[in-house]
Amino acid sequence: MTMAPDVNRKLSRAELDVQRAELRARLLDAQFALREARVPLIIIVSGVDGAGKGELVHRLNEWLDPRGVDTHAFMAKSPEELERPRYWRYWRALPAKGRVAILFGSWYTGPILQRVYGETGKKRFRRTLERIASHERMLCDDGFVILKFWLHLSRKAQRKRLRDMEDNPLSHWRVLPQDWEHHSLYDDFIKTSKLALTTTDPQDAPWRVIPATSRAKCESNVLLQLVERMEEAVKIRKYVTAPRITEGKRVKIPSSLAQVNLDSTIEDGDYRKAVTTQQARLNRLVWAAHQKKISSVLVLEGWDAAGKGSAIRRVTAAIDPRLYRTVPIAAPKNEELEHHYLWRFWRELPRAGMMTIFDRSWYGRVLVERVEGFASTEEWQRAYDEINDFEAQLLGHDMLIGKFWLHISKEEQLARFKKREEIAYKRHKITEEDWRNRKRWNAYEKSVDEMVFRTSTADAPWNLIAGNNKKFARVQILKTLCSIFEKAL
Amino acid sequence: MTMAPDVNRKLSRAELDVQRAELRARLLDAQFALREARVPLIIIVSGVDGAGKGELVHRLNEWLDPRGVDTHAFMAKSPEELERPRYWRYWRALPAKGRVAILFGSWYTGPILQRVYGETGKKRFRRTLERIASHERMLCDDGFVILKFWLHLSRKAQRKRLRDMEDNPLSHWRVLPQDWEHHSLYDDFIKTSKLALTTTDPQDAPWRVIPATSRAKCESNVLLQLVERMEEAVKIRKYVTAPRITEGKRVKIPSSLAQVNLDSTIEDGDYRKAVTTQQARLNRLVWAAHQKKISSVLVLEGWDAAGKGSAIRRVTAAIDPRLYRTVPIAAPKNEELEHHYLWRFWRELPRAGMMTIFDRSWYGRVLVERVEGFASTEEWQRAYDEINDFEAQLLGHDMLIGKFWLHISKEEQLARFKKREEIAYKRHKITEEDWRNRKRWNAYEKSVDEMVFRTSTADAPWNLIAGNNKKFARVQILKTLCSIFEKAL
Repeated sequence: MTMAPDVNRKLSRAELDVQRAELRARLLDAQFALREARVPLIIIVSGVDGAGKGELVHRLNEWLDPRGVDTHAFMAKSPEELERPRYWRYWRALPAKGRVAILFGSWYTGPILQRVYGETGKKRFRRTLERIASHERMLCDDGFVILKFWLHLSRKAQRKRLRDMEDNPLSHWRVLPQDWEHHSLYDDFIKTSKLALTTTDPQDAPWRVIPATSRAKCESNVLLQLVERMEEAVKIRKYVTAPRITEGKRVKIPSSLAQVNLDSTIEDGDYRKAVTTQQARLNRLVWAAHQKKISSVLVLEGWDAAGKGSAIRRVTAAIDPRLYRTVPIAAPKNEELEHHYLWRFWRELPRAGMMTIFDRSWYGRVLVERVEGFASTEEWQRAYDEINDFEAQLLGHDMLIGKFWLHISKEEQLARFKKREEIAYKRHKITEEDWRNRKRWNAYEKSVDEMVFRTSTADAPWNLIAGNNKKFARVQILKTLCSIFEKAL
Repeated sequence: MTMAPDVNRKLSRAELDVQRAELRARLLDAQFALREARVPLIIIVSGVDGAGKGELVHRLNEWLDPRGVDTHAFMAKSPEELERPRYWRYWRALPAKGRVAILFGSWYTGPILQRVYGETGKKRFRRTLERIASHERMLCDDGFVILKFWLHLSRKAQRKRLRDMEDNPLSHWRVLPQDWEHHSLYDDFIKTSKLALTTTDPQDAPWRVIPATSRAKCESNVLLQLVERMEEAVKIRKYVTAPRITEGKRVKIPSSLAQVNLDSTIEDGDYRKAVTTQQARLNRLVWAAHQKKISSVLVLEGWDAAGKGSAIRRVTAAIDPRLYRTVPIAAPKNEELEHHYLWRFWRELPRAGMMTIFDRSWYGRVLVERVEGFASTEEWQRAYDEINDFEAQLLGHDMLIGKFWLHISKEEQLARFKKREEIAYKRHKITEEDWRNRKRWNAYEKSVDEMVFRTSTADAPWNLIAGNNKKFARVQILKTLCSIFEKAL
């Protein structure tokens, strides 16, 4: 935590003006340099009521080039926000590469107030702070620059500030009843905030506590610190940190794929009966989940030509089309490339009582991106933790997660590729890329094994499906899915 | 309206299979060709309950390459949808260029059911149908291909279909109580649907009524018509139609800009008092609007260096940051280029009780895009109607619209350009482009006059603000804005 020095002590008004003009010019240069370097910047404005947070936000908007800035103020959660995990709205507010997001109110505001008002206990508050720290760490790891300003006023100064504002008929409206209520809880508020600030104060994104008694000094202070950090960020452009899993190479990873019995099969007659029975069962369960507002996320991964598409159709045929959405995932493009790799998946999270089916998913990070080298070693290695953390947030919001790997043998894949090339309307499904991927079978196999090993958690385990017999696979997927729903209902 | 011929009458089962396989291959080719040609395709699936709409949607998903298809099913409106004008959710579902959207339920479903249940009168139903027609016309004008399928069953066939489904324990769940209720209203439903179909049946997007008694024939029928229309669309690629305003060249357009008294000014002392008074007034009004859930949209347009940015800051300084969002509009990019030009503005419409401030706006279509030739003559000429229609929908949703043109003289602009080049932190605001635009002053002037003439409507008139004196302009904007709110509250 940096306590700002009391700058500008002996400068005259005129000198101050010159200094500020220079700083503003530097600030704009730094903003343009960050845009050029595609570094996303987050500025968090927090602090004591009456300290002038709103004015500071206005000022930041004036100083920066507004074409590169989005300001997000967070109020009580909207219905659409309530239907998603807590961080959904913060993911929506994350700046794209090279852009600036000013957060007025942030992931700190709610937890601190809830603790002050005794709505959360000590333990839960600690856990919330850990979640914040891990969220910020993930962003810093991805190259985000985060500046956190805390505007401070003493109890006495706060009372004076609120009174002055109330006495002036033109700013009277700025003081809300809740401001006085918070004032009466000043000591609790400071104690809780101190705990929050000290536990979320890493080197990458330290808190900057700014004395706010003098508005002008407060602004100069923020301006100076902002400029310096931005200039530093352009110079360093530290995109990657050490990988989280240092034991990665030492642990012996078991081969889960080898355990799958690819000879599993089902008779045609049994198949027809089983599919309709399971579909009817699934239909009832999905409606029941809808009524209870339980959301679900399905992840379908598997080898090329393993039958993901036709398996998904057997699932969706059983579900009212208004209750689910299928999201096919290909290489990221346009807006997606401008954001953190998890961003596009957060966007697609289902509303309360709905289902999203991902045809391929965030696991691309540790599969194709790893094998093809689109992600650096550090990036895919830390992705296991990031993914587990992401899924933990969904589970914490009482979402159901079903993860399926559709497994086939290398020989079966070859046979299917050849067959596809013979049927006119399936020919488009076989591309050069599929043949190329096939050559890296062993590398993919290793990645799948490590993925299963590192991301099979108690509430979101991987289901490995024997897919050499398509019909067997479809019935397995339907059955497994039904039991996931049944367990939760 | 096309009544499908009773195809495949005399083909054997085997012949049919061959024919279907051929059609599927052709369909995929057509889809890829449309993607190549960047033509967006909308497939609407409507019709009688029990006719197999859901199955058809599943089938379409199977036939088409799913990586280019989004299926949208519309249920009761979500809270976020309720807070926006009616078509907001359909804009969100519009396909990007080269993509396919399958709409299961569409802008037809609600209006037809409401009419059948007597919730809307004849007149309002007519108006709704006109709105639908104008929405589809706008899309066709922009190069969209729309296919509208209506699956038909006779009353008797419907009863049989529903009974058969109920009797089969495996499809029993597909029949909902509302299906029987609709069945009892069959005649009303058909009568109302007929009216809807005949009044929204233009050459560009005709209805295709498909007999659905035999599922196989129905599917072949749809497949055939789909393929043929898609192939035709690739050939024609008709992007523009005749402009709507044919009298465009004949009408004498009055010069509104010439009427603005650019000598208007305000004393410094009066200015300070006026700004704070108006800001306090605006603050109260915006809070009051928030409480009444009245949303508002502000449009700021004007010459380069007219002072839009600083005027916006005077407005936002008065408003709680949680109640507004500023959206700066530049040339469209990425995802925006893939859509209709109005798409990105629909996305930004405020929630209930909130305000969106557009720093430049959809009027770019008839200003910069017209002058620089980014839009064809047909495109900008029909844009007046499209924009009026868009704003009418906002007004119909009880939103407030404030449109401001900030006017300055050519000399004043020159003086400001020069001054900006002298101040380090303002230098970035002057670019080559500004100097280039300045050379086309007369062309822009003509465009502004025509814009004011054609899009000043009773509830959303243009406010021309004298901007040579910045302070006068700011006070004017604040006052006008306040009176817009006051009138509505």
